[in-house]
Amino acid sequence: MHFNLTHATDSLSRTPGILRSLLGNLPNEWTSGNEGDQSWSPFDVLGHLIHGELTDWIPRIKLIVESGESKTFEPFDRFAQFEASKGKSMEELLATFEEVRSNSIDALHKMNITEEDLKIRGKHPELGAVTLEELIATWVVHDLDHLAQISRTMAKQYKEAVGPWQAYLSILK
Amino acid sequence: MHFNLTHATDSLSRTPGILRSLLGNLPNEWTSGNEGDQSWSPFDVLGHLIHGELTDWIPRIKLIVESGESKTFEPFDRFAQFEASKGKSMEELLATFEEVRSNSIDALHKMNITEEDLKIRGKHPELGAVTLEELIATWVVHDLDHLAQISRTMAKQYKEAVGPWQAYLSILK
Repeated sequence: MHFNLTHATDSLSRTPGILRSLLGNLPNEWTSGNEGDQSWSPFDVLGHLIHGELTDWIPRIKLIVESGESKTFEPFDRFAQFEASKGKSMEELLATFEEVRSNSIDALHKMNITEEDLKIRGKHPELGAVTLEELIATWVVHDLDHLAQISRTMAKQYKEAVGPWQAYLSILK
Repeated sequence: MHFNLTHATDSLSRTPGILRSLLGNLPNEWTSGNEGDQSWSPFDVLGHLIHGELTDWIPRIKLIVESGESKTFEPFDRFAQFEASKGKSMEELLATFEEVRSNSIDALHKMNITEEDLKIRGKHPELGAVTLEELIATWVVHDLDHLAQISRTMAKQYKEAVGPWQAYLSILK
């Protein structure tokens, strides 16, 4: 499917509402359970999404538009949420994500990105040259990736409860 | 996590709203694309969920409560949606799913299922003895499984658009 900025922005603006519908007012044990080992709970994922809004997506978009390939993106801290979310509730994280994502969408609109702009290249610290279009498409896919992860992690909390149906439910494997 | 009927019912009642937020008014190419081969598009999944409400979940719950292990569940047709959804729009399927899920939740409430009832056993055509609790837990996990599938399938439509980031996005593999 060809990238479309309007559809991508629309999809990004939906994520906070989807996550609130999925996770709001659920019992803590459902949102704090992970998939074992060092995997993330839905609570951890929310913190990660918030950190991305604050330090990753819009800052990188601005850097591409303003500096092209002359400045390399700051590496993204994938573990910042473990400190940043300490002592917070899921309801606080959902509200914060709504706010920071809304700010990101506003910032994106104000930049009036054109079809031409989407071809501008920036410099990723590991991947090298990437375009603005690839960055925004990645933002959308990153949301969907974590939505799938949250669904899967929630499902796994009922792994024992489903009994023999475990054999039929591919998400539990 | 221990099964809890109130939380399970709450989770089931949220799914139509989540799917509307995710899929409502999206361009057709995003909701009709699949993962290749015989995999399902989000449109196919919606039809499958509707068919489950009409023929699977509540009918099986009623059969367990009324007949225990004396009657075997009807096998579920996993391909009925390809005929049933023909000529319909995603908006129609979303509205139908809202309606049939709402009817299912009403039916569930009216049955006044107790903790004792959850232990009643029914007979699955392939899995053999299963409890009412396992059936309802499976319903919840089945929703989450298909939500993850829809997210993953949507993400894959941007597989080319993300460029070199493909290497970092586990959902695209």
